[in-house]
Amino acid sequence: MSLIVQKFGGSSVANAERVMNVAKIVTDTYAKGNDVVVVVSAQGDTTDDLIAKQMEINPDASRREKDMLLAAGEQISIALLAMAIEKLGYHATSLLGWQAGFETSSSHTSARIKRVDASRIQDELDQNNIVVVAGFQGISRHGDITTLGRGGSDTSAVAIAAAMHADLCQIYTDVEGVYTADPRKVENAKKLKEISYDEMLELATLGAQVLNNRSVEMAKKYGIELEVLSSMAKASGTIVKEKPRMEKMLISGVAKDTDIARISVIGVPNYPGLAFKMFSKLSKKKINIDIILQSIGHDGKKDISFTVAKDRGPEAVEVLEDYMVNTLGAKEVLYDDEVAKISIVGAGMESHSGVATKMFEALYDAQINIRMISTSEIKISVLIDAADADKAVKAIHSKFFD
Amino acid sequence: MSLIVQKFGGSSVANAERVMNVAKIVTDTYAKGNDVVVVVSAQGDTTDDLIAKQMEINPDASRREKDMLLAAGEQISIALLAMAIEKLGYHATSLLGWQAGFETSSSHTSARIKRVDASRIQDELDQNNIVVVAGFQGISRHGDITTLGRGGSDTSAVAIAAAMHADLCQIYTDVEGVYTADPRKVENAKKLKEISYDEMLELATLGAQVLNNRSVEMAKKYGIELEVLSSMAKASGTIVKEKPRMEKMLISGVAKDTDIARISVIGVPNYPGLAFKMFSKLSKKKINIDIILQSIGHDGKKDISFTVAKDRGPEAVEVLEDYMVNTLGAKEVLYDDEVAKISIVGAGMESHSGVATKMFEALYDAQINIRMISTSEIKISVLIDAADADKAVKAIHSKFFD
Repeated sequence: MSLIVQKFGGSSVANAERVMNVAKIVTDTYAKGNDVVVVVSAQGDTTDDLIAKQMEINPDASRREKDMLLAAGEQISIALLAMAIEKLGYHATSLLGWQAGFETSSSHTSARIKRVDASRIQDELDQNNIVVVAGFQGISRHGDITTLGRGGSDTSAVAIAAAMHADLCQIYTDVEGVYTADPRKVENAKKLKEISYDEMLELATLGAQVLNNRSVEMAKKYGIELEVLSSMAKASGTIVKEKPRMEKMLISGVAKDTDIARISVIGVPNYPGLAFKMFSKLSKKKINIDIILQSIGHDGKKDISFTVAKDRGPEAVEVLEDYMVNTLGAKEVLYDDEVAKISIVGAGMESHSGVATKMFEALYDAQINIRMISTSEIKISVLIDAADADKAVKAIHSKFFD
Repeated sequence: MSLIVQKFGGSSVANAERVMNVAKIVTDTYAKGNDVVVVVSAQGDTTDDLIAKQMEINPDASRREKDMLLAAGEQISIALLAMAIEKLGYHATSLLGWQAGFETSSSHTSARIKRVDASRIQDELDQNNIVVVAGFQGISRHGDITTLGRGGSDTSAVAIAAAMHADLCQIYTDVEGVYTADPRKVENAKKLKEISYDEMLELATLGAQVLNNRSVEMAKKYGIELEVLSSMAKASGTIVKEKPRMEKMLISGVAKDTDIARISVIGVPNYPGLAFKMFSKLSKKKINIDIILQSIGHDGKKDISFTVAKDRGPEAVEVLEDYMVNTLGAKEVLYDDEVAKISIVGAGMESHSGVATKMFEALYDAQINIRMISTSEIKISVLIDAADADKAVKAIHSKFFD
């Protein structure tokens, strides 16, 4: 007998029919002799409806009350799923975040899980109940309801799997697994059977949007085997684990991120430590920077370019104009949010030369101009014009996988 | 400085505009220097929407999961009201039933409050916060969410008032107070300034539908002064207390109840103890009986008539046909649900003779036939044809109040 944690997102429980479909998957797993803990998000539109209600009353409501409001969403979905499981003739118990033992920090709307006391979940499993847990939520030490922020339900599922030493944590989603590229955009995209935590982390960061990063980090830390699969298709998905079987592939995927912008500070005086001071200023505002490029400089001046998340772009420009231009005498700050970052990820590239060359060749063949380049041990990213993004993904994917 | 508990029902918080209206009433009370605890029901349609979702998935869901589902309703309304109070520039903290210390029995969907540990509420008041509490819900000793059943939010409010020795418990509703008759039906109905707990209890039982009975009983037990008033009108309402100032009125109200049915068991053998056995049978099924009438009997036979709630009628008939007719040899069971109970209530009638006569005279003048009569120290009820109900209320009201 195994302990399996299954997580279903909001679209998987969007209406009565889908809730029944999830109940079928869950009870099939239970009927095979497994203990099952199910983690559910709020139903598809519930969160949007609740936010609309809030906006009508008070757009600047406190974060504590926002959490109180939004946490009602999962309360509804866990009760409905438990009822659906009962309908199929099985026993189910739904548990809210605090009932399931999710102790979190007090930072409302983006709380961190500190500890999962799974004793109540274990009690229910011992009584042969299927346990349905509200994802995304927990309780602070003040006894207040907290929520975990974006992708929180994935993290909830992995945290339970870690606390209970589950044999497998299945993340059900609307795609059938992790692909070598976005299957809606690239015809020959292949589903991976297995992938390592590190590769998955790079892909998640790069905008593959399959799994939330925090959940992959936690799974890696506690050695929890993840499976990403579809709640609609019957096919097996992609396993995320420490050492996947080699599939003789140089790279495991091509990812695209268009939610970024490039900022260039032109004519920066060439004093030591200036780049450090500039990035410190941004760091204090919690603006993360990504690819950095610095010109060699001449006449005592240099140019520094880097990328930031698009939604933090205008704020970054404001900070830099004030500090770099007005205070330190740089010439100007340029901003461009019509850019895209295309990345290839693969543990295989560490031991194989020529991967970068192959990528650049694909882009050259497609007549796409590379504006910046960044590399790590298992990743190569290039910055290109946003208009070329889909063409670039197709060209690179075809070069490596066709 | 006083401690005031204010309760608002579902229609009072049905939309954003009404939530803001409630926030205004609450903050006005707070601004006058009072500590304020607000108890709220789920928004108007939320409960219906949640029940519809349940019915689509599993009409026979367990009562535990029903409670989990429905309790999300108040969670939404308390968060929204707290946000509305914040919008007006005040500090508010919303608390769920379990956070507010509502410990209940484990009978899901109709739990009883065992104890209110108001320490968290007191902490919040000490920090000058307005406290918004979810009515209708609590927690069992197993740590499960429970709901209190019909009218539960009134009871929640009175329980907090009792636990915290509040100076006043205001029940805001969609009527302006307690009237001498239903103001939508009787033109000259008068709003009472004050009424005793006992009179209010009789009126509530008799279908006046202003206050839930459990809440009045609890207010009486703990000596909590209640005020029934409208969240829409600015007028003061009706105070419910132990010893109201005499208003020189014989009776305080005329009430109508059409949710009843009359059952007659004909030809019951005239043995001692048979009526007792019959009512025991019904009592075991938790079927409450009301007005009872027994014929004097002849030829060793008698007839027993009584009233029950209409929704329990068919079940009562079934029990009686099986037991009284098939087992004990009574002749037959007759059933009539086209009846109404009209009652007058008033502490004054204890010391004044002729009240009954006056009531019967009013009915005679209106040519209405009385089918059964029942009296208590502060109440006289008659059973009549349902078709005559409104006419009867008007005739009696006019006799006593015009």
